[in-house]
Amino acid sequence: MDVADLSPAQARARFRGGERVPTAGWCRGWTQANLIAVPSRLRYELLLFAHRNPQACPVLDVGEPGSWSTGLFAGDLRTDLPAYRIYRDGEAVADVGDVVGEWRADLVPFLIGCSFTFERALLAAGVPVRHLELGTNVPMYVTNVPCEPTGSLSGPLVVSMRPVPEELVATAVEVSGRYPLVHGAPVHVGDPAGIGIGDLGRPDYGEAVEVYAGEVPLFWACGVTPQAAIMASGVEYAIGHLPGHMAIMDARDDDYRVI
Amino acid sequence: MDVADLSPAQARARFRGGERVPTAGWCRGWTQANLIAVPSRLRYELLLFAHRNPQACPVLDVGEPGSWSTGLFAGDLRTDLPAYRIYRDGEAVADVGDVVGEWRADLVPFLIGCSFTFERALLAAGVPVRHLELGTNVPMYVTNVPCEPTGSLSGPLVVSMRPVPEELVATAVEVSGRYPLVHGAPVHVGDPAGIGIGDLGRPDYGEAVEVYAGEVPLFWACGVTPQAAIMASGVEYAIGHLPGHMAIMDARDDDYRVI
Repeated sequence: MDVADLSPAQARARFRGGERVPTAGWCRGWTQANLIAVPSRLRYELLLFAHRNPQACPVLDVGEPGSWSTGLFAGDLRTDLPAYRIYRDGEAVADVGDVVGEWRADLVPFLIGCSFTFERALLAAGVPVRHLELGTNVPMYVTNVPCEPTGSLSGPLVVSMRPVPEELVATAVEVSGRYPLVHGAPVHVGDPAGIGIGDLGRPDYGEAVEVYAGEVPLFWACGVTPQAAIMASGVEYAIGHLPGHMAIMDARDDDYRVI
Repeated sequence: MDVADLSPAQARARFRGGERVPTAGWCRGWTQANLIAVPSRLRYELLLFAHRNPQACPVLDVGEPGSWSTGLFAGDLRTDLPAYRIYRDGEAVADVGDVVGEWRADLVPFLIGCSFTFERALLAAGVPVRHLELGTNVPMYVTNVPCEPTGSLSGPLVVSMRPVPEELVATAVEVSGRYPLVHGAPVHVGDPAGIGIGDLGRPDYGEAVEVYAGEVPLFWACGVTPQAAIMASGVEYAIGHLPGHMAIMDARDDDYRVI
């Protein structure tokens, strides 16, 4: 069975069974989300940080302290993503396949929108998506654009990149712009140096893709941004997903489309 | 000078000087907002409640604990609104002209969008606004529609009502829908009983207006909803504005327009 045809529950069962792969292209039509779980004492700061940086951190759902499922995610957040990244004192200390033993009782899970949500709409509009063609993870970069801080959280904007043929740039902007709750239109079009990216060939997360002649790199705000803030702010403990290895939600892409 | 032509700073100075009037029609083109200040221990619950009920509780700005100004409100939140309502243990205990003595050090102020923001756009589209014609406060009603609760906050949706000629209902919906961050399109069109309103002539807040023959009552989610939640949830202490007596912000109506 093509992974695009799996239901969220079927995909989650495979990840729970140990499959560790990026989720780009999985479960066509179902929304994917970024996970960031923080100690309860930071839940207000993180929710406010998300509110102040809505394009990078659109909150789709928030769980109760210590819980591992939410209204929009009926699975087990500790096992049902393909891979996780654990942070201590602002450093990524481990990438693991489940976090059952690490899910402290005071962790509050946040599910943050993901640009994979509008990729099907891009394809439908005739915009090619390189990493889907290649079956790889989307390339992501830490920029030099600072997020709006809160009292204790600050950090740089993270972006995902998709190369788009020049004649389709406007289409890609318009189509993704119809999904403001999952990052919306690009935050930057063109020269990577303009947002502090030195080398497209060396992404901070995911895998590099080639930008062909006649193509322009488009950069979208990315839901890995909270993880960058966890690192920049030296947060004592947090659990995120491994970038590109998303939570597959019980919500439809179309739920986040406007207009 | 017509109050519509005042700047936010000028209007705030008049309120600070003791003028106690509804702000509908004041400071044309400048955004107005609802105030709700809650004890710091409730700030996460309120921000999450707002996130879960975005049409009624669009958060425009949040202040630091104990502060009385924010990035979008350069005045003094304790004195620069025309009137305030103080809550203790879920009951409205006083309506006052300032809250300098009541502004506890742990209060966190939230500024919530207000439907006055799109009234100029309604007028520009040829939709009459009855309470502006009359120079009165907009009528507001507590409905039987429950908000999405959080752990400790729950309560009914509050709505504002404007009667609109039948042939302009679609226009009013479309125009207000372009302002999703200040309540957007109506939540209900037509029979007040459908959302539990027994008598349009007896609003819970503001002043009644007549619905003429050939007009339909349109109901918009209202930023007084957090105050209804404070009451329904028995919160120990909170300060809101007197409904209709808004915070006039240093932000433009057009800042909240999309499309």
